[in-house]
Amino acid sequence: MAPKEVDGAEVAKHNSRENGVWIVVHDHVYDVTDFLDEHPGGAEIILRYAGKDATEEYDPIHPPDAIKDNLEPEKQLGPLKKGSLKEEPKAVEAAPAPAATTAANQVVAAPEPYVKPSLDQILSLHDFEAVARMSMSRRGWNYYSSGADDEITMRENYNAYQRVWFRPRVLRNVGNVDYATKILGFDSSMPVYITATALGKLGHPDGEVCLTKAAHEHNVIQMIPTLASCSFDEMVDAAAPGQVQFLQLYVNSDRARTRKIIKHAADRGVKALFITVDAPQLGRREKDMRTKFEGNASAHQTSGKDKVQRDSGAARAISSFIDPGLCWADIPELREAAGDMKILLKGVQSWEDAVMAAEAGVDGVVLSNHGGRQLDFAPAAITILPEVVQQLHHRGLLFKADGTRFEILIDGGVRRATDVLKAVALGATAVGIGRPMIYAMSGYGTEGVSRALQILKDEFEMNMRLLGAPTLQHVNPSMVDISALRMPNVGPTAYATNYELMMPAGTKAKL
Amino acid sequence: MAPKEVDGAEVAKHNSRENGVWIVVHDHVYDVTDFLDEHPGGAEIILRYAGKDATEEYDPIHPPDAIKDNLEPEKQLGPLKKGSLKEEPKAVEAAPAPAATTAANQVVAAPEPYVKPSLDQILSLHDFEAVARMSMSRRGWNYYSSGADDEITMRENYNAYQRVWFRPRVLRNVGNVDYATKILGFDSSMPVYITATALGKLGHPDGEVCLTKAAHEHNVIQMIPTLASCSFDEMVDAAAPGQVQFLQLYVNSDRARTRKIIKHAADRGVKALFITVDAPQLGRREKDMRTKFEGNASAHQTSGKDKVQRDSGAARAISSFIDPGLCWADIPELREAAGDMKILLKGVQSWEDAVMAAEAGVDGVVLSNHGGRQLDFAPAAITILPEVVQQLHHRGLLFKADGTRFEILIDGGVRRATDVLKAVALGATAVGIGRPMIYAMSGYGTEGVSRALQILKDEFEMNMRLLGAPTLQHVNPSMVDISALRMPNVGPTAYATNYELMMPAGTKAKL
Amino acid sequence: MAPKEVDGAEVAKHNSRENGVWIVVHDHVYDVTDFLDEHPGGAEIILRYAGKDATEEYDPIHPPDAIKDNLEPEKQLGPLKKGSLKEEPKAVEAAPAPAATTAANQVVAAPEPYVKPSLDQILSLHDFEAVARMSMSRRGWNYYSSGADDEITMRENYNAYQRVWFRPRVLRNVGNVDYATKILGFDSSMPVYITATALGKLGHPDGEVCLTKAAHEHNVIQMIPTLASCSFDEMVDAAAPGQVQFLQLYVNSDRARTRKIIKHAADRGVKALFITVDAPQLGRREKDMRTKFEGNASAHQTSGKDKVQRDSGAARAISSFIDPGLCWADIPELREAAGDMKILLKGVQSWEDAVMAAEAGVDGVVLSNHGGRQLDFAPAAITILPEVVQQLHHRGLLFKADGTRFEILIDGGVRRATDVLKAVALGATAVGIGRPMIYAMSGYGTEGVSRALQILKDEFEMNMRLLGAPTLQHVNPSMVDISALRMPNVGPTAYATNYELMMPAGTKAKL
Amino acid sequence: MAPKEVDGAEVAKHNSRENGVWIVVHDHVYDVTDFLDEHPGGAEIILRYAGKDATEEYDPIHPPDAIKDNLEPEKQLGPLKKGSLKEEPKAVEAAPAPAATTAANQVVAAPEPYVKPSLDQILSLHDFEAVARMSMSRRGWNYYSSGADDEITMRENYNAYQRVWFRPRVLRNVGNVDYATKILGFDSSMPVYITATALGKLGHPDGEVCLTKAAHEHNVIQMIPTLASCSFDEMVDAAAPGQVQFLQLYVNSDRARTRKIIKHAADRGVKALFITVDAPQLGRREKDMRTKFEGNASAHQTSGKDKVQRDSGAARAISSFIDPGLCWADIPELREAAGDMKILLKGVQSWEDAVMAAEAGVDGVVLSNHGGRQLDFAPAAITILPEVVQQLHHRGLLFKADGTRFEILIDGGVRRATDVLKAVALGATAVGIGRPMIYAMSGYGTEGVSRALQILKDEFEMNMRLLGAPTLQHVNPSMVDISALRMPNVGPTAYATNYELMMPAGTKAKL
Repeated sequence: MAPKEVDGAEVAKHNSRENGVWIVVHDHVYDVTDFLDEHPGGAEIILRYAGKDATEEYDPIHPPDAIKDNLEPEKQLGPLKKGSLKEEPKAVEAAPAPAATTAANQVVAAPEPYVKPSLDQILSLHDFEAVARMSMSRRGWNYYSSGADDEITMRENYNAYQRVWFRPRVLRNVGNVDYATKILGFDSSMPVYITATALGKLGHPDGEVCLTKAAHEHNVIQMIPTLASCSFDEMVDAAAPGQVQFLQLYVNSDRARTRKIIKHAADRGVKALFITVDAPQLGRREKDMRTKFEGNASAHQTSGKDKVQRDSGAARAISSFIDPGLCWADIPELREAAGDMKILLKGVQSWEDAVMAAEAGVDGVVLSNHGGRQLDFAPAAITILPEVVQQLHHRGLLFKADGTRFEILIDGGVRRATDVLKAVALGATAVGIGRPMIYAMSGYGTEGVSRALQILKDEFEMNMRLLGAPTLQHVNPSMVDISALRMPNVGPTAYATNYELMMPAGTKAKL
Repeated sequence: MAPKEVDGAEVAKHNSRENGVWIVVHDHVYDVTDFLDEHPGGAEIILRYAGKDATEEYDPIHPPDAIKDNLEPEKQLGPLKKGSLKEEPKAVEAAPAPAATTAANQVVAAPEPYVKPSLDQILSLHDFEAVARMSMSRRGWNYYSSGADDEITMRENYNAYQRVWFRPRVLRNVGNVDYATKILGFDSSMPVYITATALGKLGHPDGEVCLTKAAHEHNVIQMIPTLASCSFDEMVDAAAPGQVQFLQLYVNSDRARTRKIIKHAADRGVKALFITVDAPQLGRREKDMRTKFEGNASAHQTSGKDKVQRDSGAARAISSFIDPGLCWADIPELREAAGDMKILLKGVQSWEDAVMAAEAGVDGVVLSNHGGRQLDFAPAAITILPEVVQQLHHRGLLFKADGTRFEILIDGGVRRATDVLKAVALGATAVGIGRPMIYAMSGYGTEGVSRALQILKDEFEMNMRLLGAPTLQHVNPSMVDISALRMPNVGPTAYATNYELMMPAGTKAKL
Repeated sequence: MAPKEVDGAEVAKHNSRENGVWIVVHDHVYDVTDFLDEHPGGAEIILRYAGKDATEEYDPIHPPDAIKDNLEPEKQLGPLKKGSLKEEPKAVEAAPAPAATTAANQVVAAPEPYVKPSLDQILSLHDFEAVARMSMSRRGWNYYSSGADDEITMRENYNAYQRVWFRPRVLRNVGNVDYATKILGFDSSMPVYITATALGKLGHPDGEVCLTKAAHEHNVIQMIPTLASCSFDEMVDAAAPGQVQFLQLYVNSDRARTRKIIKHAADRGVKALFITVDAPQLGRREKDMRTKFEGNASAHQTSGKDKVQRDSGAARAISSFIDPGLCWADIPELREAAGDMKILLKGVQSWEDAVMAAEAGVDGVVLSNHGGRQLDFAPAAITILPEVVQQLHHRGLLFKADGTRFEILIDGGVRRATDVLKAVALGATAVGIGRPMIYAMSGYGTEGVSRALQILKDEFEMNMRLLGAPTLQHVNPSMVDISALRMPNVGPTAYATNYELMMPAGTKAKL
Repeated sequence: MAPKEVDGAEVAKHNSRENGVWIVVHDHVYDVTDFLDEHPGGAEIILRYAGKDATEEYDPIHPPDAIKDNLEPEKQLGPLKKGSLKEEPKAVEAAPAPAATTAANQVVAAPEPYVKPSLDQILSLHDFEAVARMSMSRRGWNYYSSGADDEITMRENYNAYQRVWFRPRVLRNVGNVDYATKILGFDSSMPVYITATALGKLGHPDGEVCLTKAAHEHNVIQMIPTLASCSFDEMVDAAAPGQVQFLQLYVNSDRARTRKIIKHAADRGVKALFITVDAPQLGRREKDMRTKFEGNASAHQTSGKDKVQRDSGAARAISSFIDPGLCWADIPELREAAGDMKILLKGVQSWEDAVMAAEAGVDGVVLSNHGGRQLDFAPAAITILPEVVQQLHHRGLLFKADGTRFEILIDGGVRRATDVLKAVALGATAVGIGRPMIYAMSGYGTEGVSRALQILKDEFEMNMRLLGAPTLQHVNPSMVDISALRMPNVGPTAYATNYELMMPAGTKAKL
């Protein structure tokens, strides 16, 4: 006996969880309402076809009989009455790729007008950077994205990671992977912290408290910047009870003022102090400086005492207090002022200084070139990490007198969990991430930062599985190949469009 | 006596095999009907000029008297009567190159509208890739062509081969070259097999059976994919009697299900089992994931339980069953379940794991990073092949207890027979080819795959001659120079247009 | 009691030093007249907002209470009367970046018409080069910017510096940094001199005296060129009393003439003589040579004796007197003719010749390839500097018999103080800068050169601080990493737009 | 007494050698008729200004008083009468560079319509290549310019030279430089010969006899190609008495035919035989093959026996006679057949085969990969030259039993005399140049080839002076730095526009 045909009009009514979900595959009708939550591909994709013909979607990704094998007979409702189901126009996804996107000389252009992608369209930290570039004020973008001189070091920070390859291991049980760690003894959900960046309100009106809140959500540590748009107390107030915060410190020529800041930080519960040692003077960032000349054609007619100090961008205006005389002799006093707080040097760029730091009794160093914003041609932190670890090890300095680790943190150029895992493999405890976090904040506020941190977590889980590393202890030097690390960088980078050409004076960008 | 002149009208009548073939060269008429099949350049080129003046075509590629020297006197019909042969407009080929193609900043643009080239215009596997890019659905192209994260490894797979140079030998008798081999003891017409790729119906409505049929035509082995659009049995049914097939296996968390699959494979005559060990979780392929957002502007308004899982492309939807806990301890059970089938590990990425595999008693490994679709910055197989061979050799593991070879296969990035020969020279038995085969299938079905395999054969014949290698045994390590193998990759690749720029969210391609 | 509100009209009147300066921040009015000169960011930025609402500018770069904390209570004038201050249209700087500048495929285009930037918009030596390219006569630009053959060496001169990384030190007292030095015993405000370049009037009607005057302003030494547009005496006359000048010398086939020149130089007080040894014949600079053919379509119809010598640019026309027979045997005579003047060889390109020079008793060498204008594929000076120093040291030749240094100067490709510091670290006394100075002169005359020298000074101060080098003695080999120095150059350079593609005959540039 | 003023009308009459030459400089009139031939910059440039005001041209390239110092008083005719000389419009050369050429993203475009440059505008071999690309038939261009597979080796041939740096020496007497040499004992005006290339009439209707004639003019040796468009006898007939010619030989499967060719060559006075050993089968050159499909849309409808053999370009059609079985055992017979002619192997690509060749008693080898037209990824000759020389030396094979040199020639990728000098420094006797010669011939016939050879001579003279090498004996290994020779190639090449992107099927070039 031929099975009874089902009318398309009946099918079309079963178009939601509420109304029941029927779909048509190869001219047969199925009731998949109860199967929704068992579907390996998720319920949502089925719901898109509720009350419709799903054959075209179904076909390429299932063996022919999958639906019959998985559905009880009584849910297999019978053949569709021919022609009774109104056909829909095909989805765009199935259409051939338009010429514009299949052609070779693809360039990334701002759609006119620019529409900011929704947050769930953001798949990586690169995306946040692209959104920031497209949607921030030019002043803010120029301040955040600029580097010293010709921006060689700024680009190298990113590029150097591209010269480290993995050596993944297979057939290890990675059903559960654990990427939690401790930084200076404090819990962190991953080997990442939000490092200090200045002038957050150039990106978002709420400023750095966005970072504070998102850090809490994801149990990562925020390093409070000295040159923030929010005040120190605002950032501490924004923290949740028990939330760990570190403080970045520029040492003032007026040491009393510095001692006062340190004391206040200790009083407010800050756990570690990061003395900035790579910025006796704030760097020239010419892209930032060029901002001044835009839209201000008459400015160079100013003269005399009030003449515009045109060779300064946002950075220089705010940094005149930094003491260029700070030296090793000052460390004991700072060490003492810090009291129970940990104290680290941020901006170490050679193994010699890492050794001196360990010998000076601080708790660790951040290998950093200040995001490529200070001395151009300073090395990327990842390139010197191996020799720093080796030299400290050679001198027995990887552990302090109390048996705890002398901690090596690094920052600069990180965009992926894979970058972090390379640093961890080479001996870093954790990696500071700066620009990507303020780009996320600039585009989407706290929610953006939170998404950025979640993306990193997803990447850690995936990549540790694929590396064959159930825990961070498994991520050791044998997992990376650094034979090309000191070679010149090559080729265009992925997401090359996030980097801008250097623009000499008198030239301008053009599509 | 002056020879009798021949009238052009008479010449024009002799314009085919049927009517006889006369041609004019330097104002003399020749009857070349009987010479057609002796012509070193083939009959066809002469037939183009049957009944016409062939001087312009003839001149640059023959010494002046070639035609007189090769044609009996009675076929030399005499001088053409002046002006009696109607001149044709010149062929396009003889025209000066148009400005558009001689200028420098050439870009590859989709002609409007795109016309798929005929199959005989396809000269290399690169061509199939270009056709696929131009003519596939965007969804299919994005699924096939995407790689993990920033697609560094995906590109490196191809690029690494560009850093291996040949050391060809001369004056060896290469009148006959033999590139046939055995893979795991089974005959193969060349050191190539079709490796497993998923979701074939995204490219062609017939799906993977196209591969099965073309593999048979050319006596190469197909590895049946677990995640095919066709069912396992469809692919086995499509095989010819005696046709060798291998099976790729994702091990299921439910081992009973895996045992059932293995048993069924053995029953159906599958010869070898390739346990996928580089995919405890399927990789993020962001280009594939971005497909979801196209043409679906309102999608992010969905909320609640049925919210679109937007961070998943086609790959993630189909892979939830894979067991991330699979480990070395599981190998004996799988080994035993495989029975008479060979068993290999697919996705080994370090010499350490190759050694462990040999010690675990499997029959070989596939050095592979899953086409650059899993862990970004995993090394290209060809870069680790030398050390894998060396370490196995060092430990006496290149041969198994029964005296047969522990086989090393590799895949990823192969586009030319030269690539394969480099791998063979360095110790691989054979090379798996994936994407190029499904690109060929996407454009032209079974016939396309068959053409792709024939192109490879033609390349093998040519390149082994030019290498001075009459057989594959002659293709040994002395034939390659790998001094640049571990250096950073450089420069744009040939056929750079087949690779796309990474496109961050909120940007789009533009001509 | 609520504080008295201040009317916006009153605020607007206080808009200058003369009228007093009031500003509004977060709806409160402040009198900052007396604070102007204490403001860390300078008075000017405040004056821009005199009589206006400064909140938007103030916010991102100050903690919220900064103004209240820093201003005495009586200067805090009270709340602004709501709506009483006329709002201004927003400054351009705050506007979102226009699509044209945020998009990726940025190209540098000449605005139509080209407007030369004001001198205070010039931030680096690259800028001068861009201005020269945009605003000079084509003949002048082609003469200055061209190099030998394919301009490989010319580009390498610049590129080689990009392969040297710094190894900066931290926590050294760099409150005061001193970059003054002595060159051949003569004071120089920095380790830089203006090297000889020819035909200055192609760039500026005043010619090389601009260089003389600016050199004096900044206490740097000028090397007077033989092939200048100004006469030797004009350049000496333009010098200030006591100003040190050196002289570049092409040795004439007529040695009497050369002796006469040397004597005259000594009489006029020149301190050192630089014998050019890399130019027995002036190089072919094809870009320069191509200048001849532009706008002169009928020229190749000239014939006979007066036929245009088309294979010569500006350079060849002026150099027929140079003696290609000059050799080591001539040095003693030149040495003697020089009398009290120092004598050096300019254009040494191998350690062998540096050793021979030291043994020949001259006072030093300039490692130079003549700006890449002579032999293409000559090495960049910086790449051979390490071996020159090593070999001289090995032979005990770094110091002369009188205990003074055998001086090693270098030139070619320098654009930044960081470049100079790399050369100094590797053992050079000072660096000659040529093209950037004449580009500065071409655009802005003496004032331009002066600005260029000031920019270098600013860069020295900054970069020595960031290097951790209080004096040039601290800038030693341990401060640089040259592991990539001999590797092939890679990637596009920063400011790539300052370099032009090679243009074969019959092609032309096109936007 | 004020000197008498000269009227501009009078000046204007003195505008040629015949009428006398007066010029005006800084408002004074000078009679330079007798000075014309003493002018260091040549007479022609003065003649351009005969009867005119030359101040603007004079100023930048002369010291102010040069004209007065060099001209006798009676030739200094006095001040120009103000306003009496009609001003001319400024020459184009003095005009500011137009925006189109100063802007950055320069592309090389074919002017519409294309105007071939006059021969005196051709400054380098690159220029001939550009002209050929712009003006040849597409078929001819595609045949000449194509390489094997992805054209990696073809490009590497050129690129490898870019990785060799010079180590020039100074202060050597280079008043006279001598770049003449002997090749196989025969005089050659420079270490260059014209190597064999096929199908010359694709470029020029006269074919290869153009090469013969130009070779004679410049006393260089031509290697006669087997696959020429001209017949062997035509090329020999075109030679001048005593002109040395070599012969390239493809060995035929029919050895009798080969012996006949050899005998004929000996009879006609050929001096050396070059056995082609790198072409047992002619390579696939896909760009050449694609030519077939252009302008022939209906071709793929042909079917049956006469179906177009579409996978063949011009090359395959003419080469079916080549014997792929040729091997070392055949050498003695060929050696004997050659009689008094020298015999060499052309196409050796490893030191092993160079050693075998020397041991087999031939007179030398050509290190060659057939212009990158045979096996892709064959090494560039220059990269293997050092090890070939070293291994031959090590085995005492650099000299033959009779005490003459075992000669090492190389070809491929040469565009400049500097390339040749690098090869000579590394041990090559001479370098074969192929494509550049047929490009010169294609554009300008015999005269073009002659100009190409003259350009090389000019380059040799210049570059040997600049190298400090009076003779070729001075050009030894100490003059080159090959530390980067085996590194991956980098960056875009100079004259990048002469290379075309690979174009997959179905795509086309577009401006």
